[in-house]
Amino acid sequence: MLSIEKYQHEFIEYLETYSTVKEPENLYAPIQYILELGGKRLRPVLTLMAADIFGDNYKHALNAALSIEVFHNFSLVHDDIMDDAPLRRGHETVHEKWDVNTAILSGDAMLIMAYQLFENYEAPVFLELAKLFSKTALEVCEGQQYDVDFETRTDVSVPEYLKMIEYKTAVLVAAAMKMGAIVAKASKEDQDNIYSFGRYLGIAFQLQDDYLDAFGDPKTFGKQVGGDIIENKKTYLYLKALEFSNEEDSVALSQLFASNPEDVTAKIETAKQYFVNSGSAEATKKAILAYTEKAFAVLESLNIPEPKKAILKTFGSNLMNRTV
Amino acid sequence: MLSIEKYQHEFIEYLETYSTVKEPENLYAPIQYILELGGKRLRPVLTLMAADIFGDNYKHALNAALSIEVFHNFSLVHDDIMDDAPLRRGHETVHEKWDVNTAILSGDAMLIMAYQLFENYEAPVFLELAKLFSKTALEVCEGQQYDVDFETRTDVSVPEYLKMIEYKTAVLVAAAMKMGAIVAKASKEDQDNIYSFGRYLGIAFQLQDDYLDAFGDPKTFGKQVGGDIIENKKTYLYLKALEFSNEEDSVALSQLFASNPEDVTAKIETAKQYFVNSGSAEATKKAILAYTEKAFAVLESLNIPEPKKAILKTFGSNLMNRTV
Repeated sequence: MLSIEKYQHEFIEYLETYSTVKEPENLYAPIQYILELGGKRLRPVLTLMAADIFGDNYKHALNAALSIEVFHNFSLVHDDIMDDAPLRRGHETVHEKWDVNTAILSGDAMLIMAYQLFENYEAPVFLELAKLFSKTALEVCEGQQYDVDFETRTDVSVPEYLKMIEYKTAVLVAAAMKMGAIVAKASKEDQDNIYSFGRYLGIAFQLQDDYLDAFGDPKTFGKQVGGDIIENKKTYLYLKALEFSNEEDSVALSQLFASNPEDVTAKIETAKQYFVNSGSAEATKKAILAYTEKAFAVLESLNIPEPKKAILKTFGSNLMNRTV
Repeated sequence: MLSIEKYQHEFIEYLETYSTVKEPENLYAPIQYILELGGKRLRPVLTLMAADIFGDNYKHALNAALSIEVFHNFSLVHDDIMDDAPLRRGHETVHEKWDVNTAILSGDAMLIMAYQLFENYEAPVFLELAKLFSKTALEVCEGQQYDVDFETRTDVSVPEYLKMIEYKTAVLVAAAMKMGAIVAKASKEDQDNIYSFGRYLGIAFQLQDDYLDAFGDPKTFGKQVGGDIIENKKTYLYLKALEFSNEEDSVALSQLFASNPEDVTAKIETAKQYFVNSGSAEATKKAILAYTEKAFAVLESLNIPEPKKAILKTFGSNLMNRTV
């Protein structure tokens, strides 16, 4: 087993051999651009780790890891069009730097290239990887559609929200880990359990993202603190606050999340007060912990040596104690 | 072997069992809409025919045929966004009926669903189908990018144009036929030859589309006659006319194809005169014939009974004598 940093390093080195500019340049240059923008490379690292944990050499999982990263970046390129986002990781988004048509077409090519990265695996492994990939990719699309639908709905329930983040975020983390297990030819049971571990961890990760967006430290949090509040996003914090509030506060909070005031600082402060006073902030922290613990409970059933379970547990704990 | 109409009928019946509305509705309703808009279903019919020709039951190829049709419609949905097209087969395009974001996301889902349709084939067949599909789909993206690039270039050569239509149109016809051969477990040699047949036929088909766009009968041609001329599309007719014209005519034709006059009728007439007088119209007809004959020559090397070769030849002849 390597350290997280070493996996990241190995992955980035492999990524660099992959990104070569091909013809037509207007199709492939945006792909190279987005893949080189950086990011934590969390998902591909999980694929490599999972392969090592189930007894294979992580190098064997590099193509699967790269496929996950190419798919993740495909989804960012298309989501950024839909969200009309100007920036991604501090740089221009693809549709800003080029144009919307380029971002659509280069994104399409990336989705296809993600499948091609499975082609060097033998047929039965290819079939398993591609099936899991398709199922996951379609769920990510469904999650994105629910997210879009929720923007204009005022009756989103907490279970619906949890399903949305599961599809939009958690299943890809889960699939990333299961792919490592598939490549390492782990048992079906272990494959399913590592998938569950990743899914619970992914939900916890997204809930924590919601929490940090409001309560993160502006010095260490990568994005603008309060971004979700400014954009009236119905996150877990918001939905739980509505649930816990009396009629009067509920109406006031709904109205706040239908407003677009000039003074965003005041709006953010007011929203945070509702989150804290209603008990929603505390409930969100509890939910993050509960999903993390569900993930750790699944670890117990994996047929791997205890030190390897400890590695996954440490990884999960670090992820949940992050401030970025 | 069935008649073309019978294959179409069988395919449409299968398609109807496939299109069921799933959740989230805003993701899947546009997919059902575009798949039900009709069209000639040329590509899936070719897949079914090819499977029968190589001795399998066409029913075994229905999922591969459907995959090809789902992919083809995916490409129409995304291309229509890029071309800002209001209509498709006489009905509103997806991005017009819904919006651009919906058309992007539903298109993405269709690309994934096309891969899923291979999942019922055994692992080695799945691998072969998915590899061919990915290669083809990426070429279609490249072809679309070249098409976009050509809009703003004034130095497009005839070989570049032929490569563009090969990628954008012909490789999918070729892959549709090869998939039938793969499902039927035809020899590698036969697979490659039927691919070549489809590729030559696809190029001839697209060149004929160019020709009919200018010289088709308005009563039978499905689209607006002269549409390419109005939109200043640098088709084979245009590029050959430039090649064959003297300096003076070349400049005049270039200027005509940089103009957007109110009176499109006069523009269409003038362009057609250049096409005829330069010899480009005749050269285009010759090129269509030449590619059709290349396709027929490949047929000779297929290891199938003569009557089956005759069926493919009749199909090709009918396609090349079409007026729609």
